[in-house]
Amino acid sequence: MSANSYTIESLRRFPATLGRGIGQVMFQDNVLTGFIFLIGIFWGAYEEGIGIVAWGALVGVLASTLTGYILHLPDVRGAQGLWGFNGVLVGCAFPTFLGNTLWMWLALILCSAMTTWVRTGMDNILSRWKISSLTFPFVLSTWVFLLAARLFHGMPPVNMGTPEFALGGSEALDMTFGGLVVYWLKGISQVFLINSWVTGIFFLVALAVSNWRAAVWAAVASAVALATVIMWKGPGEDIANGLYGFSAVLTGIALGATFCNNSWKASVWTLIGIVATVFVQGATNAFFSPMGLPTLTGPFCLATWIFLLPDYKFFRPLPPKPQPAKK
Amino acid sequence: MSANSYTIESLRRFPATLGRGIGQVMFQDNVLTGFIFLIGIFWGAYEEGIGIVAWGALVGVLASTLTGYILHLPDVRGAQGLWGFNGVLVGCAFPTFLGNTLWMWLALILCSAMTTWVRTGMDNILSRWKISSLTFPFVLSTWVFLLAARLFHGMPPVNMGTPEFALGGSEALDMTFGGLVVYWLKGISQVFLINSWVTGIFFLVALAVSNWRAAVWAAVASAVALATVIMWKGPGEDIANGLYGFSAVLTGIALGATFCNNSWKASVWTLIGIVATVFVQGATNAFFSPMGLPTLTGPFCLATWIFLLPDYKFFRPLPPKPQPAKK
Amino acid sequence: MSANSYTIESLRRFPATLGRGIGQVMFQDNVLTGFIFLIGIFWGAYEEGIGIVAWGALVGVLASTLTGYILHLPDVRGAQGLWGFNGVLVGCAFPTFLGNTLWMWLALILCSAMTTWVRTGMDNILSRWKISSLTFPFVLSTWVFLLAARLFHGMPPVNMGTPEFALGGSEALDMTFGGLVVYWLKGISQVFLINSWVTGIFFLVALAVSNWRAAVWAAVASAVALATVIMWKGPGEDIANGLYGFSAVLTGIALGATFCNNSWKASVWTLIGIVATVFVQGATNAFFSPMGLPTLTGPFCLATWIFLLPDYKFFRPLPPKPQPAKK
Repeated sequence: MSANSYTIESLRRFPATLGRGIGQVMFQDNVLTGFIFLIGIFWGAYEEGIGIVAWGALVGVLASTLTGYILHLPDVRGAQGLWGFNGVLVGCAFPTFLGNTLWMWLALILCSAMTTWVRTGMDNILSRWKISSLTFPFVLSTWVFLLAARLFHGMPPVNMGTPEFALGGSEALDMTFGGLVVYWLKGISQVFLINSWVTGIFFLVALAVSNWRAAVWAAVASAVALATVIMWKGPGEDIANGLYGFSAVLTGIALGATFCNNSWKASVWTLIGIVATVFVQGATNAFFSPMGLPTLTGPFCLATWIFLLPDYKFFRPLPPKPQPAKK
Repeated sequence: MSANSYTIESLRRFPATLGRGIGQVMFQDNVLTGFIFLIGIFWGAYEEGIGIVAWGALVGVLASTLTGYILHLPDVRGAQGLWGFNGVLVGCAFPTFLGNTLWMWLALILCSAMTTWVRTGMDNILSRWKISSLTFPFVLSTWVFLLAARLFHGMPPVNMGTPEFALGGSEALDMTFGGLVVYWLKGISQVFLINSWVTGIFFLVALAVSNWRAAVWAAVASAVALATVIMWKGPGEDIANGLYGFSAVLTGIALGATFCNNSWKASVWTLIGIVATVFVQGATNAFFSPMGLPTLTGPFCLATWIFLLPDYKFFRPLPPKPQPAKK
Repeated sequence: MSANSYTIESLRRFPATLGRGIGQVMFQDNVLTGFIFLIGIFWGAYEEGIGIVAWGALVGVLASTLTGYILHLPDVRGAQGLWGFNGVLVGCAFPTFLGNTLWMWLALILCSAMTTWVRTGMDNILSRWKISSLTFPFVLSTWVFLLAARLFHGMPPVNMGTPEFALGGSEALDMTFGGLVVYWLKGISQVFLINSWVTGIFFLVALAVSNWRAAVWAAVASAVALATVIMWKGPGEDIANGLYGFSAVLTGIALGATFCNNSWKASVWTLIGIVATVFVQGATNAFFSPMGLPTLTGPFCLATWIFLLPDYKFFRPLPPKPQPAKK
């Protein structure tokens, strides 16, 4: 019996596999985290009046996870949710940006499925340098379909920005404490493309359930990103919608609570990475402006790779060592 | 005497080397296929009233093949036509998009020659992941010169699209059986940038002479691509000119009759690859719209890499096994 | 005591390390070359009335070199100036393109520092194919900040070109001998983003001090590039400002006096590389036109990689051999 054989056990834990897939969007191999994320997605999507985004998320995680089984990939990856996290993001993105047509749904399923083998291919390449593809299979596959949507009227790009030369807006921000808290929480909710401060709270709670360091770094990252983009006078409307937060939140969790160790050096490194992500986010927004293409979590991937590739030893996870009486 | 020494034998088979170079555009190491391709190119080019495209093809294949000898590359590659296929495509592309000036012809020769060492370089990189550069040396080199032509009035971009924001046309299609057959055949002829249904027939015949599976997959791919882009309501004029077919045709031959085995799994994989290529084609069209740059066969390369990189064992060529009485 | 420990010796030679960092922009591990470059930068910047460019250069080389020490990278690299050359270019670019604000200076420091670890990361990747990252860490990091500047009003892109569709100008050139000499020298001065023929002379002298072959190739490259872009009728204003020279100058030094040997084959190869760089420069200008982004030395990197990646043995440095009475 080969390592890739699936058993009744695989079927029994299928719901948990889906939950972990949702949790892995923020690097948490944790069913409960995934389900609280899902509740947050449903809350926010219906609050925004676009409930199909939440249903898209479910279809996406199903399509990409089932694709892993169909391709007969090693179950150990699937059971950790590593087939699902790109798919759930595809599922959030399509109904957010495209019109609700049959062709959009077919494309959503194809694109979600595609992330599973794009991930295998990218990891084949990137593993040589000890980095992973992060959410880039979602980003690349979705860019393909969103760009094609510009020309394919069967899935019209009704909610994508108009292609235009990048100029930058200067809308006023609500600089009261309450206003800033809303922007800060939306920076977190936008990781799943949700524009709702309540959902941001759900996501923080979901992270804390699994790993309090991840929750702290998500909170810190959104705050630092917000401060950075306000200081550099970025576009008000995008700031208000949390669009300068989500990539930085993922960078914060990736560097601060996943791939680096807990030393103070790694913390400084993570903070610099968060600030850099804000500029990468702005750059990517400007670059794609003439195509009217959203960046998705591309800036997070680019920035995190830049901070992981040097492979300096001070940010590798500390080796386990005998700890006599610590904690 | 080193392996790279050329003999009188190399000279004697030089015409065949050129023919194989043309044949390798669709992966056929076959002189006859190459010469029927060439007849199809001449037919289509003169039918369109731009005969210099065919002469450009000849100059291109000559320049890139001779470059292989001048660089003293191993003759075994040259004899298979692997120095020529990128050059012949350069030779088709330049007179198709640029004005007929002395500077265009000089650039054509330089660009064709360049594909030979770009190919060496790219294969140095890609061989680590068991994939080849496909036609990307042609694509990359030609993109460089076509983009430069936007600014260099010595080789004016007279037949390149105007740079503009991507919006997508909605021209009506001729949906009769006869109309669809014309679109289907033009999807095949456009592999060499020829817009002629007669040339499409030449190309199918040329493929069948070498490998009937390749001919079948070319035919299937153009049909599936046509059906896909019509369903998703792509731009009518581009569909009518076969511009959603050529990349898919190459993907079909690459996956279905070159790099994968003959199992039903590989066939399903190839079909998904063909459909995906249509979206990659649309995406690339939209992405390059503000630069007014044609995609060339870039979408084929990107899509085929995506479907080859995972390196799943079910699509590797089946190992030869003892076959008692199997026909 | 580890190889990475820094000693009082490191401190003592710190000024020389900065000088070598400036010299390495044109591949010269030579203090004197670096300081003559710096004089040329100061001359040109004040001549143009934008003296802060020269001060930016100093801040940049300081920030990126200090970052190497802070990250505790092997001192042997630093002592060769390999931490500094990307930073000095960042320092020239920011005040050239952006408004003189506090936020610009903070971003300049962050971006210069970033080049040091981007270089580590890129070299981790590229060393597998025996090529180096050249100035691409500067290019990539600066693209990020210049693009972001389109949207971040805190560091306004006051001297960047307006985003527009690429059309190409046809301004008249001064085709007298004196005019051409000025364009030729500006092609050299623009390596550090300086638009001054006097600075071009400084740079040639600085190169000759270290390596006369480098000086000759710089001179030849700027002349060949000028001839090429005039023949192909490139945009007059850019030609007059030396903007088709600087990438070719770097390609010339890289191929002709750094990575290849002194054979006549390598010289032909270098000449072809210089011509190709002109087309890559035009292509990159056209590609980035809708984003209004300057190419920086990106075309040099791309072209030089294309000419180094094939790794043909005839352009590797000749092995040292016993030379009885030669010279």
